[in-house]
Amino acid sequence: MQLSKIGEFGLIKKIRKRRMDASPGVLAGIGDDAAVIRTGNKKILVTTDMLIEGTHFDLSYTSFYQLGYKFLAINISDIFAMGGTPQYFFIGLGIPGKYRSEYIDELYTGIAKIAGKFGIAIAGGDTCMSKKGFVLSGTLIGSADRIITRSGSKEGDGIFVTDTLGDSAMGLMLLRKRQAEGKRQKASAWARAPRPCKTLTSREALFLLNKHLMPEPRPVKNTSKITSMIDISDGLLIDLGHICDESKVGAVIYKDKIPVSKALGSAAKISGTDPLQVALRGGEDYALLFTAPQDIKTDAVQIGEIVRKGRFIIDEKGRKTRFKPEGYEHFKSSF
Amino acid sequence: MQLSKIGEFGLIKKIRKRRMDASPGVLAGIGDDAAVIRTGNKKILVTTDMLIEGTHFDLSYTSFYQLGYKFLAINISDIFAMGGTPQYFFIGLGIPGKYRSEYIDELYTGIAKIAGKFGIAIAGGDTCMSKKGFVLSGTLIGSADRIITRSGSKEGDGIFVTDTLGDSAMGLMLLRKRQAEGKRQKASAWARAPRPCKTLTSREALFLLNKHLMPEPRPVKNTSKITSMIDISDGLLIDLGHICDESKVGAVIYKDKIPVSKALGSAAKISGTDPLQVALRGGEDYALLFTAPQDIKTDAVQIGEIVRKGRFIIDEKGRKTRFKPEGYEHFKSSF
Repeated sequence: MQLSKIGEFGLIKKIRKRRMDASPGVLAGIGDDAAVIRTGNKKILVTTDMLIEGTHFDLSYTSFYQLGYKFLAINISDIFAMGGTPQYFFIGLGIPGKYRSEYIDELYTGIAKIAGKFGIAIAGGDTCMSKKGFVLSGTLIGSADRIITRSGSKEGDGIFVTDTLGDSAMGLMLLRKRQAEGKRQKASAWARAPRPCKTLTSREALFLLNKHLMPEPRPVKNTSKITSMIDISDGLLIDLGHICDESKVGAVIYKDKIPVSKALGSAAKISGTDPLQVALRGGEDYALLFTAPQDIKTDAVQIGEIVRKGRFIIDEKGRKTRFKPEGYEHFKSSF
Repeated sequence: MQLSKIGEFGLIKKIRKRRMDASPGVLAGIGDDAAVIRTGNKKILVTTDMLIEGTHFDLSYTSFYQLGYKFLAINISDIFAMGGTPQYFFIGLGIPGKYRSEYIDELYTGIAKIAGKFGIAIAGGDTCMSKKGFVLSGTLIGSADRIITRSGSKEGDGIFVTDTLGDSAMGLMLLRKRQAEGKRQKASAWARAPRPCKTLTSREALFLLNKHLMPEPRPVKNTSKITSMIDISDGLLIDLGHICDESKVGAVIYKDKIPVSKALGSAAKISGTDPLQVALRGGEDYALLFTAPQDIKTDAVQIGEIVRKGRFIIDEKGRKTRFKPEGYEHFKSSF
């Protein structure tokens, strides 16, 4: 069977069957945000991400600086999702020979910017020429006193998110809309002066673009009571589905509790989309989704609770419908 | 400046200037075979390698099984070159959508084969679709009681290699020759029945092909007296040059001490090449090159000694010429 028919999740499932983490040193592997391995008496977290031009990013609206920033940001998000602290980043680059070295300087400036914010050392990597477009592969190593997987949710736990959802997906929608209009401006010029359109202010447009091009990962401060955690990369419904799968539980979420930014509301009005659908299904939020006892003290927003089984959304009129782990395919796979 | 003009080593030099391993946890970084980082009170080794279709491998004569085997073998070789024990492998794959899942099964079978030999756990990774050909990115984590870098060589040390050199380069030459002849047989069929030609027996041909397609990394058993080590991936002269650069020393090697296999001799005769030139400049040997006091007890072959400065080859008649860190460009970058 062709892989395009199995899809990415199907492939991960197949690989998971084959992995050999029956090894005593591997405490968690494929199927969580990062792997947990034991070295000596210490547990470390390892996450790897590969970004391929044409699949994951589009240099017609992403600058090399932004690409570098986001490259490390999405890896940091995976470590935060395990309750960890990111420490060492390894960079693999496959670079087209026609690139100017300034591009790579700009990329490293973006990586260094966010590395500096979180005290991450760029510790090594591999650089080679690519005849097939630009490829980036990152490995981020971190540590955690208490590691949080996707499999610890209990019936009765609250479901929390750390930020507004759907902004990144709407930012991508704006970028693509501009592109379709044939305005092939460089992303950097873009970010400086997004064109306000009707009800969307330039400040709001900039907010949405930045959420997409340079997401800002943020850890949960006190993780001691958290039972499961994941970062929202594929969209809330899919990623909540992962928690349910791994914890063998169900979930109920409330439509009117999903945090939606004012900017997303404004942009949705213009584009004639339902902001809530974007928030539920849009990917690349890189906010954290966690479950914890409902009386936890937290800045995060509770959007529902864990139940024994089934996955439901309750709308503002109290009507309950089942949800499937679906995202907007067209929102994914490109920044 | 375009990167194709700076070249890979130039680029690594530029990146090295930018890296931020002034961080106390990074004990060695870019510029050695693997990075050394501290986690808790333990030192760990991390190496990453990226393989891109068209740059590093050619599926017209490499099977997916062989590709998987070599993918992990070259990472193991980097950990051995630091005196370490490989432990955890992370696999990033960018897979063309048209691939059949059997290809990836075969790749994993090759990876699992060599992982099993060395007790390495496949601990995680990232899988995504690629519109730009097949891309593999591996991260191998290991540990070492005593870490050996490239920078410890002292004047008077002997220079040793652990295996015959040039076999892999000659294996590649044979593969390309066949390809040029338009015999587009699958590499697997190939490895089963290499066609003997004139003085080259099929056993010899198979030996050379296997050295190229499925290199067998081997550690040095007792590393306690070794002062510097590197694995020979770019060719003896280039990699010895790296030891000289990092240790700030010179080297003298003796032509008639370079270990050359009988198979390489036979194949060189047919192709009209000088086997010694192939042994000195051919890449991808994945043998280890180390320096140690000359009285060390070892199975490795001494090929020369470390001197204060200068890099010289002495031929069978005792004539001394300077050498430059040069490899056969056309021998590299493809398997």
